[in-house]
Amino acid sequence: MKKLINKPEDVVKEALEGIAALHSDLVRVDLENQIIVRADAPLQGKVGVISGGGSGHEPMHGGFVGHGMLDAACPGAIFTSPVPDQMLAATKAVNGGAGVLHIVKNYTGDVLNFEMAAELAQAEGIEVASVVTNDDVAVQDSTYTAGRRGVGVTVLLEKIVGGMAEAGAPLAAVAEMAQRVNNQGRSMGMALTSCTVPAKGSPTFELGADEMEIGIGIHGEPGRRRVKLASAAEITEMLATPIISDLGLKAGERVLAFVNGMGGTPLIELYVVANELAKILKGKNISIARSLVGNYITSLEMAGCSITLLRLDDDMIRYWDAPVHTAALRWGM
Amino acid sequence: MKKLINKPEDVVKEALEGIAALHSDLVRVDLENQIIVRADAPLQGKVGVISGGGSGHEPMHGGFVGHGMLDAACPGAIFTSPVPDQMLAATKAVNGGAGVLHIVKNYTGDVLNFEMAAELAQAEGIEVASVVTNDDVAVQDSTYTAGRRGVGVTVLLEKIVGGMAEAGAPLAAVAEMAQRVNNQGRSMGMALTSCTVPAKGSPTFELGADEMEIGIGIHGEPGRRRVKLASAAEITEMLATPIISDLGLKAGERVLAFVNGMGGTPLIELYVVANELAKILKGKNISIARSLVGNYITSLEMAGCSITLLRLDDDMIRYWDAPVHTAALRWGM
Repeated sequence: MKKLINKPEDVVKEALEGIAALHSDLVRVDLENQIIVRADAPLQGKVGVISGGGSGHEPMHGGFVGHGMLDAACPGAIFTSPVPDQMLAATKAVNGGAGVLHIVKNYTGDVLNFEMAAELAQAEGIEVASVVTNDDVAVQDSTYTAGRRGVGVTVLLEKIVGGMAEAGAPLAAVAEMAQRVNNQGRSMGMALTSCTVPAKGSPTFELGADEMEIGIGIHGEPGRRRVKLASAAEITEMLATPIISDLGLKAGERVLAFVNGMGGTPLIELYVVANELAKILKGKNISIARSLVGNYITSLEMAGCSITLLRLDDDMIRYWDAPVHTAALRWGM
Repeated sequence: MKKLINKPEDVVKEALEGIAALHSDLVRVDLENQIIVRADAPLQGKVGVISGGGSGHEPMHGGFVGHGMLDAACPGAIFTSPVPDQMLAATKAVNGGAGVLHIVKNYTGDVLNFEMAAELAQAEGIEVASVVTNDDVAVQDSTYTAGRRGVGVTVLLEKIVGGMAEAGAPLAAVAEMAQRVNNQGRSMGMALTSCTVPAKGSPTFELGADEMEIGIGIHGEPGRRRVKLASAAEITEMLATPIISDLGLKAGERVLAFVNGMGGTPLIELYVVANELAKILKGKNISIARSLVGNYITSLEMAGCSITLLRLDDDMIRYWDAPVHTAALRWGM
């Protein structure tokens, strides 16, 4: 295992300390509760927006804490759900009296723990709404999931809903928008290589030198099929076609196109995929109204990519474009 | 070779097409000359700022074209210098009558070709100034270099000088600032793994399973020494100490701390390194006034990192903070 780490068991804690040291203008880190909180939280009268999940997907979620996106993030151990206590601490830290939205990716542990945290917070008088993202069209059930997995749409949802909360929308409206974004977005990913969880020290799965996994999950969970390595054009087609079909995208519609790197793939390759995706969409007369290209929801050093398409409406565009200032996404300020 | 590409010889062209398709609001791509030009160039009366070099280091330089940074970038083939014709075409495309600055990383091919392009542009009546970055403290001469290599400082310089040009500064002042930033910055990198150039199809160099290369260049050129894998704390010390020493940083000074990923290293590991760097600097009473963490000057999918420290002055901070809108760096707009 070749990694820039000290002890495997200290990776998450030390990365949090690094975030605290370099981004103290944006966030504060509560090491005891292992949460990242917006520096100016809680904001009175603003809906709090939090998310969380296993570490190893950086910048998600900690890199999205700041003005116009998340108020807090709860990182678990690598590829391991955070615990309800973390989520409760985050909920309380961002509660400004207008309620808190929990953004939960659909993995069994995350869902159960966020449900418990929501109950605990409600018992303390904090109004909580939740949205569960389940945008991965690759598989219906998976290693850690009943139903579809939550993946790339989560990033887009956090930005859009965060912008809406920042603008002062009430909890019910923010939660409704979260559901709408999840409903209108679909994703699918693939891997060229495995990743290695530090505590395990060996690759999560094995792929032959001429193989790739289509429909991979963000923890290396099996996808739809293991096939021979193909061209970027063929791979993009394999990912985009099920997404477009499942979403029922039609000529004349407009999308946000998100080409995401799994962590170990160079940006130049992501732009080759983006080019193929743009050609496919153009061929179907679907316009790319907004885009995002880069490593935003990763699987440690896995090589590969995912594609997410989100059918946009005017409100989504307005809140996507709204100012944001986090470690990983920033514009307008 | 496992890559998200079509034909190896088409990677750069297709990535440029992808950039054109997804960032048409920011840039236009001249495929014939293989250059990326700011969408609104040339800006009358503004100093043009261009850079270029081999591809494979994305987002550098193409991802830095836009308001407040570069006016154009000239990508060569992967790890191969662009040719004078590209540089001349870029210079002409951004010439708004106030002259053009060439930002050149110190590699023999880049330096010679930019010199020739400058002569050709001057023969056409365009005033050109040049700065050569040579911030890598690892080695004095290298595979492709007489003198020190130009690496991470180039990113910071492009932002600061781009901000100054955007504010309307004349060519002489912009060139002077470029030299100042180069003089006040130092870098050093390391690799855990090699990268693979698509046209070659096999790793550039071999590293044992328990080895790393300290002082690596951004094309996999040999560094200072090949040693046994060490902890993040030890690696950060190996990189930061020569930088701090060479720069003569003293207690009470302030720096921009840049922890850069080589392309294949997950962000969580970069924050572990950032944490170690912050501890080292704190121990020397050097303050981190600004920071940047992520993949900005890469070597394809190489795993590893580099550290750059830039001694800041008030002007540098002002132009670092100035609005920028490019594909890879954006704030304030």
